[in-house]
Amino acid sequence: MQIGLIGLGKMGFNLALNMRDHGHQVLGFSRTAATVQRAVAEGITGVDSVEEMVARMPQRRVIWLMVPAGKPVDDNIAKLVPLLDEHDIIIDGGNSHYRDTLTRYRMLKEKNIDFVDVGTSGGTDGARHGACTMIGAEQAVFDYLEPLFRDICVKNGYLHTGPNGSGHFVKMVHNGIEYGMMQAIGEGFEILQKSDFSLDLAAVARVWNHGSVIRSWLIELTEKSFALDPGLASIKGVMHSSGEGLWTVQEALDLKIPVPVIAGSLFMRYRSEQEDTFSGKVVAALRNQFGGHQVDTK
Amino acid sequence: MQIGLIGLGKMGFNLALNMRDHGHQVLGFSRTAATVQRAVAEGITGVDSVEEMVARMPQRRVIWLMVPAGKPVDDNIAKLVPLLDEHDIIIDGGNSHYRDTLTRYRMLKEKNIDFVDVGTSGGTDGARHGACTMIGAEQAVFDYLEPLFRDICVKNGYLHTGPNGSGHFVKMVHNGIEYGMMQAIGEGFEILQKSDFSLDLAAVARVWNHGSVIRSWLIELTEKSFALDPGLASIKGVMHSSGEGLWTVQEALDLKIPVPVIAGSLFMRYRSEQEDTFSGKVVAALRNQFGGHQVDTK
Amino acid sequence: MQIGLIGLGKMGFNLALNMRDHGHQVLGFSRTAATVQRAVAEGITGVDSVEEMVARMPQRRVIWLMVPAGKPVDDNIAKLVPLLDEHDIIIDGGNSHYRDTLTRYRMLKEKNIDFVDVGTSGGTDGARHGACTMIGAEQAVFDYLEPLFRDICVKNGYLHTGPNGSGHFVKMVHNGIEYGMMQAIGEGFEILQKSDFSLDLAAVARVWNHGSVIRSWLIELTEKSFALDPGLASIKGVMHSSGEGLWTVQEALDLKIPVPVIAGSLFMRYRSEQEDTFSGKVVAALRNQFGGHQVDTK
Amino acid sequence: MQIGLIGLGKMGFNLALNMRDHGHQVLGFSRTAATVQRAVAEGITGVDSVEEMVARMPQRRVIWLMVPAGKPVDDNIAKLVPLLDEHDIIIDGGNSHYRDTLTRYRMLKEKNIDFVDVGTSGGTDGARHGACTMIGAEQAVFDYLEPLFRDICVKNGYLHTGPNGSGHFVKMVHNGIEYGMMQAIGEGFEILQKSDFSLDLAAVARVWNHGSVIRSWLIELTEKSFALDPGLASIKGVMHSSGEGLWTVQEALDLKIPVPVIAGSLFMRYRSEQEDTFSGKVVAALRNQFGGHQVDTK
Repeated sequence: MQIGLIGLGKMGFNLALNMRDHGHQVLGFSRTAATVQRAVAEGITGVDSVEEMVARMPQRRVIWLMVPAGKPVDDNIAKLVPLLDEHDIIIDGGNSHYRDTLTRYRMLKEKNIDFVDVGTSGGTDGARHGACTMIGAEQAVFDYLEPLFRDICVKNGYLHTGPNGSGHFVKMVHNGIEYGMMQAIGEGFEILQKSDFSLDLAAVARVWNHGSVIRSWLIELTEKSFALDPGLASIKGVMHSSGEGLWTVQEALDLKIPVPVIAGSLFMRYRSEQEDTFSGKVVAALRNQFGGHQVDTK
Repeated sequence: MQIGLIGLGKMGFNLALNMRDHGHQVLGFSRTAATVQRAVAEGITGVDSVEEMVARMPQRRVIWLMVPAGKPVDDNIAKLVPLLDEHDIIIDGGNSHYRDTLTRYRMLKEKNIDFVDVGTSGGTDGARHGACTMIGAEQAVFDYLEPLFRDICVKNGYLHTGPNGSGHFVKMVHNGIEYGMMQAIGEGFEILQKSDFSLDLAAVARVWNHGSVIRSWLIELTEKSFALDPGLASIKGVMHSSGEGLWTVQEALDLKIPVPVIAGSLFMRYRSEQEDTFSGKVVAALRNQFGGHQVDTK
Repeated sequence: MQIGLIGLGKMGFNLALNMRDHGHQVLGFSRTAATVQRAVAEGITGVDSVEEMVARMPQRRVIWLMVPAGKPVDDNIAKLVPLLDEHDIIIDGGNSHYRDTLTRYRMLKEKNIDFVDVGTSGGTDGARHGACTMIGAEQAVFDYLEPLFRDICVKNGYLHTGPNGSGHFVKMVHNGIEYGMMQAIGEGFEILQKSDFSLDLAAVARVWNHGSVIRSWLIELTEKSFALDPGLASIKGVMHSSGEGLWTVQEALDLKIPVPVIAGSLFMRYRSEQEDTFSGKVVAALRNQFGGHQVDTK
Repeated sequence: MQIGLIGLGKMGFNLALNMRDHGHQVLGFSRTAATVQRAVAEGITGVDSVEEMVARMPQRRVIWLMVPAGKPVDDNIAKLVPLLDEHDIIIDGGNSHYRDTLTRYRMLKEKNIDFVDVGTSGGTDGARHGACTMIGAEQAVFDYLEPLFRDICVKNGYLHTGPNGSGHFVKMVHNGIEYGMMQAIGEGFEILQKSDFSLDLAAVARVWNHGSVIRSWLIELTEKSFALDPGLASIKGVMHSSGEGLWTVQEALDLKIPVPVIAGSLFMRYRSEQEDTFSGKVVAALRNQFGGHQVDTK
């Protein structure tokens, strides 16, 4: 299959190589010429513009967007719409909010351009050697693309989750669970690290990956992290986030579902990005007011 | 009534003046001579030792301990026991754990020394001008002391909560609620402070104290805090804690009661005492492992 | 002042009597004729329609909406707009989302109709005898209305919080804090209730209202609740919510502020509305899968 | 190796078969004769009493306890102590609290009886076909037993975590993480289940197990659960717990580590065991008091 791939960052680049390995012809585009060159060096066909990409592809074109959520997706779709023919396919493989996906789907539907949302998990390594994809699409469009997904995903690693939007929705919840799991792991290892037992954290993670109830890829990555840097001394505990955990909590709120764990994970991430908190200042001031408890000063 | 008061710190000193104002004779002792002198300057009778205190008091002695929880209480009781006569009364007015209180009660009961646990709320200002006390005691012992409590508490501000231990138990839960209320206030004001509206936080606290559902002494103290330092710029948001919130959570765990709010308050206090977290390092390392997300470095 | 009051429910009715007591003439309207009649019996002037209300009022009209948030506010504004003259004033005294308020303000501004958002706290009793109001308005509009607010609020119980939207915003956060405080109180009293000490919960609430750190109107209401029904045996612990706690959490998420306590309160409310949870089923199923732990069945 | 195994329940029985398969001779004892018979039918040597077990074993005996935490462990140790010779080995393979383990270790040390704590993970299936074990022991004792652990665990599935107590400590934290992970999964699937997309939950779990970031044994078990009962209609969402999650939270509290996720998981378990909550009644009563909001009645 010929695929036009827009966005050759960490995920897009690896995906391109993955597609190439399976005999697909990838026309790759990135706003940065150097990024395109890096892909060309790996056997990807580079193009200088979206216009060139579309011009070089026969119908029924398959254009895969692997760009950051939000404006970049809208901008690329806006550029593509006038260039494409009916039933060409745009795939959004990024972490878009599923409600944006639904809006885009309806807009593209009116123009008879097919749209597919693909939630992609497995990290950069998965993108390279076998991803896990959750695919929201009309049945016929999915059927057309299924051979591609079969190739670039690990065995049984793709699912037609349902109609448009469902792919990004399922991926969003996947990430929400991921937040909770990661925070649980973080809390557990902090307890291990602060205990009086001098534990070998890499060894603990390793044994947990062999037969325990919590064996998982995340614990494997924990093992790798400790193997590289046993005390994690070189890094700061600032936990950034890119939106999907937040969206999961917002969705839960809309559905009136209590999600203390996923929300708790998110709050600890936000807290980690604050040097100091205003809420803490208020509480410290109150303790000082009623009890004469000393406040810490700068 | 004559009261031997051991401990003339922030709470003890104010309580001594409060008792004095109501015509009670206070024999005050502190390990620090200067502290005793400060009390003497205010009309309190100073003593140089616990032995002197006991020697100067006729039976049925009333000895009020206002010292930190834990070892100081045990040490003072150990010193008092051989000096006291049967049915002398030891009052523990500090923040002891109610289980320790029960242990001490049983030990003193065997020696026929009466013991009373008093949970004291209202801060230093309450200690000075009218406290709120929760009193665990045998009925006859409470009856004997009731005039003292009537004097030093605000009107209706004392309660015989029940048998020994119940005073400290009720005070512990009071503080647990206090933690939750304070964190709620802190969170709310952080939202106000970060909003696009340029709000006058002292004015908001003030209006909330006049007729709103959340009007309370804590919101009054919030108002005062903002009046003193509108942006709380001079203080750090480090929230120390002295045990009762922790004990409340531990008690809830023993009773299998979900207490997400009180526990959540406590966790934010602990978090505020950490510069960086190991749990955060683990999560940051994991994000780096699977997604190539940059970690913050020192 | 003459006020057209739309909505004579629990809050509106009491507010009407409050206004009347202070010499204001209230023209009251409700969709339900019986509701209007009840107000008429109390000396309120009843009108049969919004049209009649507007027709009977001279300029500069003051129309106070006391209707549920959302569509009822929009519907009433839509009905009023063609009837009003420039610089007539619409007050939204309900619990509208401040973003809706901003939208309405901009729309009405284009028509030169003045708009004011009033967050009203203090419950039905406050509405009747002295409310607490947070007022978002242009300065001149606020100045025009200030005598009204001075009359219907407790002393110092009104605040011009700032520009339009700020009144509802501050009220929203007020309610968020209220959620946290209430859950903290609930958790504390559950611990008291389940303890081995046979505590008189009404008495505990009462003593806490006299001099303790957590003395507050909410603890006063707790005392009243236990005085009416000591074990709260007649009521179920289902905690409904009407939006403002949710909005506070959503706002905090937008601002990346950790709010474990306010969110935790909200989650417990949502949980209380569920008989059983799907999340619980999943966990029970997992425990059964790996450990052979028996599941509870229906 | 010859092993005396006390306790032939779900875990013990499977462990016995596992040991047998690797050529070890197991003398099995249970308080219930029928349970012993079931093991005998599978080739285990049954004994009628602990005394018989000890009498039939030559020195250096290895006695493995697989009984519930607490009293059963103490009772069996008390029975064994007078029967054993120096440097016989008692293994506690159950979920004992590591502090109890330390107490028992010190007591047995004085009698020169060797003690080993083994945290065993992997569920019944792991016990049967390859467990994951965390082993707290003196080095020489561990060395003596290592061939046994190598046999009954999956490859790389055993770890000498350190001195006595560390095995149960690491297992405790493992379970704490497990609680957090399970609750995260539960919350995520509740969102999926309540969404407007009609998702095939078993299929979602399946695809997540093939290449996603959250692939794990727990998600595999989730897949199995949904395959067996797609809507989990037959089971109730009551989440029991057996102590280790609680202990993890208690340990974190002692170490002043914020663990909102593990604690949040535990609270949701406790909540699921309550039909109704007293905290909820208090909040409902308060809402009724100030706002006239209807309470739900029985």
